[in-house]
Amino acid sequence: MDFFNVVSVDEVKKILKENFNNLCIGLEEVSILDCLDRILGEDIISDINVPEFSRSTVDGYAIKSSDSHGCSDSLPSFLNLIGEVNMGESADIKIKSGQAIYVPTGGMIPDGADSVVMIEHVEKLDDTTIAIHRPLSYGENIVYKGDDIKKGEIILKKGKKITPQDIGVLASLGVKTVNVYKKIKFYIISTGDEIIDLDEKLKLGKIRDINGYALYSLIKKLGGEIVNRVIVKDDYKLLREEVDKALNISNIVLISGGSSVGTRDFTYDVINSFDGKGVLVHGVSIKPGKPTLIGEGKGKVIFGLPGHPVSSIIVFKTFVEYLVKEITGMKDGINKTKAIMYCNVHSSPGKETYQMVNLNEIDGKLYAVPNFGKSGLITLLSKSCGYVIIKSEEEGLYKGQEVDVYFI
Amino acid sequence: MDFFNVVSVDEVKKILKENFNNLCIGLEEVSILDCLDRILGEDIISDINVPEFSRSTVDGYAIKSSDSHGCSDSLPSFLNLIGEVNMGESADIKIKSGQAIYVPTGGMIPDGADSVVMIEHVEKLDDTTIAIHRPLSYGENIVYKGDDIKKGEIILKKGKKITPQDIGVLASLGVKTVNVYKKIKFYIISTGDEIIDLDEKLKLGKIRDINGYALYSLIKKLGGEIVNRVIVKDDYKLLREEVDKALNISNIVLISGGSSVGTRDFTYDVINSFDGKGVLVHGVSIKPGKPTLIGEGKGKVIFGLPGHPVSSIIVFKTFVEYLVKEITGMKDGINKTKAIMYCNVHSSPGKETYQMVNLNEIDGKLYAVPNFGKSGLITLLSKSCGYVIIKSEEEGLYKGQEVDVYFI
Repeated sequence: MDFFNVVSVDEVKKILKENFNNLCIGLEEVSILDCLDRILGEDIISDINVPEFSRSTVDGYAIKSSDSHGCSDSLPSFLNLIGEVNMGESADIKIKSGQAIYVPTGGMIPDGADSVVMIEHVEKLDDTTIAIHRPLSYGENIVYKGDDIKKGEIILKKGKKITPQDIGVLASLGVKTVNVYKKIKFYIISTGDEIIDLDEKLKLGKIRDINGYALYSLIKKLGGEIVNRVIVKDDYKLLREEVDKALNISNIVLISGGSSVGTRDFTYDVINSFDGKGVLVHGVSIKPGKPTLIGEGKGKVIFGLPGHPVSSIIVFKTFVEYLVKEITGMKDGINKTKAIMYCNVHSSPGKETYQMVNLNEIDGKLYAVPNFGKSGLITLLSKSCGYVIIKSEEEGLYKGQEVDVYFI
Repeated sequence: MDFFNVVSVDEVKKILKENFNNLCIGLEEVSILDCLDRILGEDIISDINVPEFSRSTVDGYAIKSSDSHGCSDSLPSFLNLIGEVNMGESADIKIKSGQAIYVPTGGMIPDGADSVVMIEHVEKLDDTTIAIHRPLSYGENIVYKGDDIKKGEIILKKGKKITPQDIGVLASLGVKTVNVYKKIKFYIISTGDEIIDLDEKLKLGKIRDINGYALYSLIKKLGGEIVNRVIVKDDYKLLREEVDKALNISNIVLISGGSSVGTRDFTYDVINSFDGKGVLVHGVSIKPGKPTLIGEGKGKVIFGLPGHPVSSIIVFKTFVEYLVKEITGMKDGINKTKAIMYCNVHSSPGKETYQMVNLNEIDGKLYAVPNFGKSGLITLLSKSCGYVIIKSEEEGLYKGQEVDVYFI
């Protein structure tokens, strides 16, 4: 029996980066209607100026600003209304000093005009005459051609997790499809003689497969694809057969349970039985999550996750998500919030401690409320929306201290 | 032409709640593998105790704790090892004083035992004798039957947006399917003579339909279903025909553009042309987003969203999301983070002002960096991950002030 050779969280991340960050996932072309939350696999460069023509930002009259200089309520400027720009049409009239043309919001600015006076500030005297009561500056209420985006500019960078506003941006540039990273393929194996699936009848001594379902959903949320989800008994041969199959059709294999030090620990041996580097990590100084295994077989990644559901979620969030971000260069913005510790939390010396918390807003302040309890497994899961991290050199977190709460 | 009759953000929410919060959406039964991010339509009540049997939380030996009292390194207790509980099997041996049984983590506690000593704290002398060096308290390393969840307890409440950890909880209870709210059906109409879709060739004076695509993605992210997305010219008859069709097959109709005061404002009249309450809101004291229309026709909700993409996103987040949460009782946790204003932002007096920002972490502090610029439409969209709200009675936000940043 091998005992753990525990390494730190940072060392594990280094090992993942060095061994797997060039795992080849490949790109695929998808419609912008289907690219929400996918990871952009290319820089998006604008091949047009935005806007493509100078536009009015208000409903009003396009004029030469010099015609408004010096005017006031008591001394208005009178201008000759010579026409109207229709929405969505090219403005083919040209403006001279003393003239004005009606332009709707978004309408094209006619040649010769350099500002637009809002209809609210204009008195329409008759069909051909308007009075202006305040002076305008050059460029007022106009967005000039290319003001927003210049042709050739990079708009969205490779690795960005695509948001609704990004999709608006892509549409504005006339982009119909984008190259995104293919979904990373995961194979989920829950091990343990006591583990049964939802279809089986619960007998005394057995428990339901929690991890298989939680991991399935975490992978979906992360944007991955689940190629299979199975339960395997504590048997070296059966587990090896299943992992062998998994390595052929997925990028990352998750084995939950079976990685603790115990008489039925076959995961370690199975990982070492394939062509490849074998076990790279056996034990991490993280709490919960110590009995974590990470290895390589047939060029794929194998994670041995702890059997305890909370540990398994923490290890997934800490290492599997980290790896996916390394592979795709994924930048997905802020996945945490600042909050105030509601009470003290102690840590385990020498370990990076992850404490499940819920968020509670009281009088406009956001509090991180820890969920404790060795026994409260389900309660712990159903009441927690995230976790706080206590670094190994810290003794704990104190009531009133500002912390980062990471969302699950 | 009707002018705006501007009401406050809170008044709009009140109007939405009073008129639409019993809009009937209905429930559907889905597998727990497909329920991520859906809104739970029922309370989930446990019909089992969790755990169903008393379990060990460690690999170790089940004993009577009284047998360990008084023992120490120099004076160990010697116990008779009478067997082993197999994982996933019922423990049918009974323990007496002076006896011990091996139990793996998660294994069932045999009758008579009231504590488990970890293997690390035990010396195995031979096949039938172990030595214990430290005293155990009653219940140590045991989770008792029902400790986590009692039969009949409510585990997840109606209205919860289902998370990966909730799905783990459902699996642990043996729940295969849950009743969730049906996806709310949306119909998206972009109006404007200048608006063209991605398939059309861009001509001077025309612009791409940004809102249709951004709204499509926002709805997907919110968990809604898009039944159709179309572009309609500025024409009363065409728009009325399209809205009529939309009201028959969707719950909420979004019309973007065409709600500003202008000569081509037909949305107002169209909303009033159907059986129902007609226009309920015409103008909101929100910036951006003032020219917002909300009405009722044929028992369905019609939103007239501003044409400007940022305004349209803000109004969607503020009112459409609010309405969906009212209809489903949806509680989706925290969708914001605390941050520090990077610089001053001025507001518009008497209006609730929404300022787009990006989040930037500098030296462990999270800053909200406002994205300004009348012209920077695309830049504004692509660089912002959320917004801050300045209440109508506030003059602005100050550099260094703590604020809530709402994610888009």
